[in-house]
Amino acid sequence: MKAAVLLSGGLDSSTCLAQAVFEYGNENVIAVSVFYGQKHIKEMDCSKKIADYYNVKHICLNLTDIFKSSNCSLLSHSTEDIPKETYEKQLEKTEGKPVSTYVPFRNGLFLSSAAAVALSEGCGALYYGAHRDDAAGNAYPDCSEAFFAGMAKAIYEGSGGLLTLKAPFIDKNKADVVRVGTELKVPYELTWSCYEGGDKPCGVCGTCRDRIEAFRQNGLTDPLMK
Amino acid sequence: MKAAVLLSGGLDSSTCLAQAVFEYGNENVIAVSVFYGQKHIKEMDCSKKIADYYNVKHICLNLTDIFKSSNCSLLSHSTEDIPKETYEKQLEKTEGKPVSTYVPFRNGLFLSSAAAVALSEGCGALYYGAHRDDAAGNAYPDCSEAFFAGMAKAIYEGSGGLLTLKAPFIDKNKADVVRVGTELKVPYELTWSCYEGGDKPCGVCGTCRDRIEAFRQNGLTDPLMK
Repeated sequence: MKAAVLLSGGLDSSTCLAQAVFEYGNENVIAVSVFYGQKHIKEMDCSKKIADYYNVKHICLNLTDIFKSSNCSLLSHSTEDIPKETYEKQLEKTEGKPVSTYVPFRNGLFLSSAAAVALSEGCGALYYGAHRDDAAGNAYPDCSEAFFAGMAKAIYEGSGGLLTLKAPFIDKNKADVVRVGTELKVPYELTWSCYEGGDKPCGVCGTCRDRIEAFRQNGLTDPLMK
Repeated sequence: MKAAVLLSGGLDSSTCLAQAVFEYGNENVIAVSVFYGQKHIKEMDCSKKIADYYNVKHICLNLTDIFKSSNCSLLSHSTEDIPKETYEKQLEKTEGKPVSTYVPFRNGLFLSSAAAVALSEGCGALYYGAHRDDAAGNAYPDCSEAFFAGMAKAIYEGSGGLLTLKAPFIDKNKADVVRVGTELKVPYELTWSCYEGGDKPCGVCGTCRDRIEAFRQNGLTDPLMK
């Protein structure tokens, strides 16, 4: 059987790719990456490096147009800056509503696009690197378990049972993902999680904070912060 | 509240748009249409005519690239012809698997794209013209009630409760949709359902057969067949 992996170039999805390659062999794995109009293409560059490292077919999609009318702070046309605070503090300000870096239904769109590609390429499984910490409270509702359950049902039923959505880390936290990835020898120095571009991660955006902490909990230092 | 409607330019989605305009007023309704590499753009032209008729904002997306590796017979690059038989006969040949006009996870992708647009435009509801006959056995699994339930959950949960998927015809059949649309005075002469382009519908593809029958059950003749 063949498997597709939704690959952002970040820590979680790169670990997920490593897991799929471990299970299926690189010749049976396809990576799917999506550009959606981010402020930088650093993560996309990293997805290419990771796909090259694992020697898997890499399909890149450009869905920029879909977010043309969104003012999410991650997007290049946005008038808002990317917040430099913890998600808790951001959620206090939004009164529990999605934060400014929430891209409207992004993960639903990514999974649906990847499902379409996966079916076209004859894959029976679609891997997705979501984990327990991803929703960050309700900062990112399209990372919640309830969202995942809905998408898993939609993809299985909507493909007539031909495609199954798999999230091997759904009951793990980010530190667990780093542990699994370290065992699988994922080249984390090739990945990128920071919301900003540049040569080095900013270290203070929500995703940087979470990544640094996940390595710390494993007694490791993020190779990008060395 | 504002509402978005997924509009193909066919009979069902045009009726759905009419219903949304009836409920919300045209100034609060946005129509979203998707080009995905079909063999003809007749349906897209009709979606524009219908959106113009109802005087609603119309957002068109092009997702052609996503289906580049699919050989679905509806796509312009496909090597397969569009079948001219009933869905029952087609399903006999495919042994119950999706038929050759099934576009891989198309409706999941369309709904996800429309959800992203709807949220960006500040809509609280997304209307979708699916009805009970749509799945045509298992010909189109991404029209099944189970698929719809999964997507509805994914969209509600994945938007943090900001967006609700509504399918006002989900428990109706196509003849019921024509009845509702006739009451709402939907200009069916501006819609297009046939899988082929041309000046007049072919009358023999699966979707033509279903449409003609839905009008017949209401004691009407499809205005396109006059």
